[in-house]
Amino acid sequence: MPKNKAVNVGLIGAGRIGSFHGETVARRLVDAELVAIADPAPGAAAGLAGKLAVESSYTDVADLLAHPNLDAVIIATPARFHTNILVQAAEAGKAIFCEKPMALTLEDADRAIAAARSAGVPLQVGFNRRWDQAFSEGRAAIDGGRIGTPQLLRSLTRDPGPFGADPAKIPQWTIFYETLIHDFDTLLWLNPNAKPVEVTAVADALVRPDFADKGFHDTAVVTIRFDNGSIAVAEANFCAMYGYDIRGEVFGSGGMVTMGDVRRSSMRLFDKDGVSSETWRRDTDHFVHGYTAQLASFVTAVRRGEITEGPTGIDARNALSIALACIESVSRKAAIAL
Amino acid sequence: MPKNKAVNVGLIGAGRIGSFHGETVARRLVDAELVAIADPAPGAAAGLAGKLAVESSYTDVADLLAHPNLDAVIIATPARFHTNILVQAAEAGKAIFCEKPMALTLEDADRAIAAARSAGVPLQVGFNRRWDQAFSEGRAAIDGGRIGTPQLLRSLTRDPGPFGADPAKIPQWTIFYETLIHDFDTLLWLNPNAKPVEVTAVADALVRPDFADKGFHDTAVVTIRFDNGSIAVAEANFCAMYGYDIRGEVFGSGGMVTMGDVRRSSMRLFDKDGVSSETWRRDTDHFVHGYTAQLASFVTAVRRGEITEGPTGIDARNALSIALACIESVSRKAAIAL
Amino acid sequence: MPKNKAVNVGLIGAGRIGSFHGETVARRLVDAELVAIADPAPGAAAGLAGKLAVESSYTDVADLLAHPNLDAVIIATPARFHTNILVQAAEAGKAIFCEKPMALTLEDADRAIAAARSAGVPLQVGFNRRWDQAFSEGRAAIDGGRIGTPQLLRSLTRDPGPFGADPAKIPQWTIFYETLIHDFDTLLWLNPNAKPVEVTAVADALVRPDFADKGFHDTAVVTIRFDNGSIAVAEANFCAMYGYDIRGEVFGSGGMVTMGDVRRSSMRLFDKDGVSSETWRRDTDHFVHGYTAQLASFVTAVRRGEITEGPTGIDARNALSIALACIESVSRKAAIAL
Amino acid sequence: MPKNKAVNVGLIGAGRIGSFHGETVARRLVDAELVAIADPAPGAAAGLAGKLAVESSYTDVADLLAHPNLDAVIIATPARFHTNILVQAAEAGKAIFCEKPMALTLEDADRAIAAARSAGVPLQVGFNRRWDQAFSEGRAAIDGGRIGTPQLLRSLTRDPGPFGADPAKIPQWTIFYETLIHDFDTLLWLNPNAKPVEVTAVADALVRPDFADKGFHDTAVVTIRFDNGSIAVAEANFCAMYGYDIRGEVFGSGGMVTMGDVRRSSMRLFDKDGVSSETWRRDTDHFVHGYTAQLASFVTAVRRGEITEGPTGIDARNALSIALACIESVSRKAAIAL
Repeated sequence: MPKNKAVNVGLIGAGRIGSFHGETVARRLVDAELVAIADPAPGAAAGLAGKLAVESSYTDVADLLAHPNLDAVIIATPARFHTNILVQAAEAGKAIFCEKPMALTLEDADRAIAAARSAGVPLQVGFNRRWDQAFSEGRAAIDGGRIGTPQLLRSLTRDPGPFGADPAKIPQWTIFYETLIHDFDTLLWLNPNAKPVEVTAVADALVRPDFADKGFHDTAVVTIRFDNGSIAVAEANFCAMYGYDIRGEVFGSGGMVTMGDVRRSSMRLFDKDGVSSETWRRDTDHFVHGYTAQLASFVTAVRRGEITEGPTGIDARNALSIALACIESVSRKAAIAL
Repeated sequence: MPKNKAVNVGLIGAGRIGSFHGETVARRLVDAELVAIADPAPGAAAGLAGKLAVESSYTDVADLLAHPNLDAVIIATPARFHTNILVQAAEAGKAIFCEKPMALTLEDADRAIAAARSAGVPLQVGFNRRWDQAFSEGRAAIDGGRIGTPQLLRSLTRDPGPFGADPAKIPQWTIFYETLIHDFDTLLWLNPNAKPVEVTAVADALVRPDFADKGFHDTAVVTIRFDNGSIAVAEANFCAMYGYDIRGEVFGSGGMVTMGDVRRSSMRLFDKDGVSSETWRRDTDHFVHGYTAQLASFVTAVRRGEITEGPTGIDARNALSIALACIESVSRKAAIAL
Repeated sequence: MPKNKAVNVGLIGAGRIGSFHGETVARRLVDAELVAIADPAPGAAAGLAGKLAVESSYTDVADLLAHPNLDAVIIATPARFHTNILVQAAEAGKAIFCEKPMALTLEDADRAIAAARSAGVPLQVGFNRRWDQAFSEGRAAIDGGRIGTPQLLRSLTRDPGPFGADPAKIPQWTIFYETLIHDFDTLLWLNPNAKPVEVTAVADALVRPDFADKGFHDTAVVTIRFDNGSIAVAEANFCAMYGYDIRGEVFGSGGMVTMGDVRRSSMRLFDKDGVSSETWRRDTDHFVHGYTAQLASFVTAVRRGEITEGPTGIDARNALSIALACIESVSRKAAIAL
Repeated sequence: MPKNKAVNVGLIGAGRIGSFHGETVARRLVDAELVAIADPAPGAAAGLAGKLAVESSYTDVADLLAHPNLDAVIIATPARFHTNILVQAAEAGKAIFCEKPMALTLEDADRAIAAARSAGVPLQVGFNRRWDQAFSEGRAAIDGGRIGTPQLLRSLTRDPGPFGADPAKIPQWTIFYETLIHDFDTLLWLNPNAKPVEVTAVADALVRPDFADKGFHDTAVVTIRFDNGSIAVAEANFCAMYGYDIRGEVFGSGGMVTMGDVRRSSMRLFDKDGVSSETWRRDTDHFVHGYTAQLASFVTAVRRGEITEGPTGIDARNALSIALACIESVSRKAAIAL
């Protein structure tokens, strides 16, 4: 692509995170342009297009893919549609940024990877945590040998409460497929020379115990053993009343790195009740820079024609393998060998 | 006991922690007096007695128990001797402070509890972490309803490196019996309205992989499920190169408390390499106040004739149950129901 | 201005901070466009224009002001040229963002304010610290009555070392005119209901004592008394070996807020030397979001036709009054009434 | 003195801090014994003696000094009596621990120093901050050359609010004589190779403005210039609603150390209002270890017959010089050369 020409991006899915990604392309990236939006919900694409001054909006993905000036797409639909749309976009020759999870089965993951490969298009997956300043400094310290060989790892995701969603509308295993998938990628990425060999998961409905017998899970703890002996724990909960809490810890033979702080800034208030800080309440606030950097990197990859620094379809498949093992572990109440 | 008379304490076991407890009684508690020390190792009791200006020293516990002015004993021998000595001391009518683990089997735990009960002597166990300022504030916040119902808990022990001990001299399962037993008590104590129902443990030799096939473990991760649905993770490692790292975390329906900081003071050094802090390198430095408060509380209990605030034989038995389940879990590679 | 049309900005001064502002307009703001750059140094404007894909570059400000599609200018020349260029731009009807200090004398400050006023153009001054997340949270807490009435304030600026500039090339009193001017604005802004009444300053050359007798100052401490009795201390030094250290503190009748942390992220490294963090080394890294927000706010003001949230010419004059009093205080070795 | 014999201490002054010191000797030091207490207030000495199981109590200092087995005294009377009692105790041959300020005039300071010297008794002054872990680590870092040459220093004392004392009963200049005297000692001690040369002070009644015209001061800011060019700011206020806030900061040519944290422990509570910590509310809680270490050091000095590590009469005189210069500076509204 010519260096000075903006990368033309089409957004597929105008829900919460799709809208945010659309806004990032339209307002926070200056060498990309949001040229089209598709969403099957009546008015959704058109509404967002109006807000972001985007010319084209569609209810059908095929129409968006037929847009004459489209270099790349961002797939931000509900998870179950990701793979099919990804394959469709690859076949249309578009560079692809796909929200996590890229697929819900290994077959679909392989199909997605193959489609991008045979089309020769870059495929990046939305593991935005890698772009956070603290997490990237942590990885750099590990790469620099500052903590020796990882032995004990931890990654957690706690979504901000109160929990207002309707559990009946949340697909089963979402906590593994959509939430902990971030932690699985983080743990694999922070333990770069190791392969996971065994997974044990427990899950429960502690936030909404009234849905426990309907297969709903809002709380989970996962133990992963790696081939170098290291042991990781991933943990998720859907209702942290104090905010959006994302943390990582890697302990090794020579030291430790910790990453993540729910406190929003360095401001501290001291009053009769003690010392206090405000907290991050939304992923899109906490990780605005990470989310932006992730798409900026994607735009660079589109220009270059290949992904060099972001997570790829293979990374998505690796994280998915662990999510699938978790589901099996919870179902069978057993440790699952990978 | 008369209020103004010092409590006369005998120390059984003059090793590292025994010597430290002896020093606490002799130098940091003013209403207790260290009157006798026993240790079978030639010269050990006499040497410490000389250093602490204690009149009587023995190589035989029975001789110490026959001391005419002895109100209480501190048992700080190797773990495998604890129960028998405890029973012997109870039969001699002495109040008992016993280092953890009080026993290595449930039978021994029951025997110890029964002996103290029938002798009518106070029996306190050395779970010193309960006396640390941060942990006790954390428990107070939980009791005050500040975090709602506990859902996810974490407790960890990382001993300071480098690891200089000879693995061949460390009894098998020490990581559960002697190290993680602290974390098990902490987790039970921080989740006061719940009972553990299932334990899964993994353990390995990552610090000294050359001893992995000899049953030596220096790294372990334990998952505990409670009857209220809450899930706890306990973690230990024998070689934290950055110091003595003890932390706790309790996440609940209304919030979270975290406790523990390896940084030694509020001093921060800012120089060309960034911002740095010094760390705790020894348990007896980090917890000097907790260790002292624990024995001060024991002395009060001796005067009063009963334990009112410290961990008892029952607490020791409860923590032991989890350690035993861990051993079974590692051996059978399975989750163990309690 | 039409809402969808980008604000066309001309940059005057292509030095370090000018280039950074130019880059912000060109790459970090999507509703502004950098259309022209002027700098008298041969090749400076053209070089930056090439890098940022800006069409027009000039060596003469008058030529830039004659650009047919210019809505606003950013003035980032050496300080002594600010006022004249500002007046020239106002007379050309351009909205003005002027780096601090807007003027070096009160007469010039008044001239600048009058020029903007009579031209009816928005005039915003580069006190970027107001846009930092921590400082703006601090101000919000003060406005919300959380700390009562301010009594003791502190603001400091420590530029990152090593100090590599040539003291002979730094105008006298730069530490007050250009460095502490930020702290003076911060203190006035964080003490919104008070007026400064007396200033005492001390200054010295501690970083480069070899230049002490040439009127060079690299270290200064200023005490400001306000009409509500509150007392502020501002402090600056040109060589903090640990990074770019900007902090604020406001203590009041009901509590305190503190703001600023030289640590770059939440990543902590724990190793045999203790616990450490990396630090901010450059203002343009530390405050990239503040710098961007400040220009985004200016762009909004340009559209709106008036400044509603940023610091104005009056604010610049108020901060300058304190800088001038400092100079007099150092010269006369006396407290100066305002 | 024989090594195993306890040092016999007499307490003079049974007010708040006297009672606390008495309790430290009686309960927190095991090689010292509190044998006598004197206080002119009817019942005060006897009451404390009863509480601490001390045999002898007096209303007259001379009677206490005549006690047959007295090695040392702690002087904790109101400040204006310190010097005379100190001289009296020296003449009686007792080792002396005197609370700050040792004297209110330089003549008295010299008289006190001379009396101790001619009697050959150790004289230690109550600058307890030197014994705090963070402050002593800070001094060690400075001694180790970690921050280069000090250039900018800060020390502050903020007493916990609400302020309940009667300003009419507080002697004029107490903020300098009794409060900031700690900060003056701290600054001199943290800048060991420099001598103060000029002092400027401002003081006001911001907590109790109704007493401003009666010579009462509850807020003060002091600037001290040293002969090596370094500049220190000391600051005090009588009413910090968030607790007992003691901090120090030394910035030098190579880095910085900061010391002091009002947060009481590492416990953090995360709830819907953010992240919070409890704070120190009383000096005797915050500095219990420093206060104890200070008297332990004094007891060692008594045994040894000389002060080797604590602040002496000379240190007290040096800090007093600054307090006196502050008083003169406030009175004359001028900088005072030392």
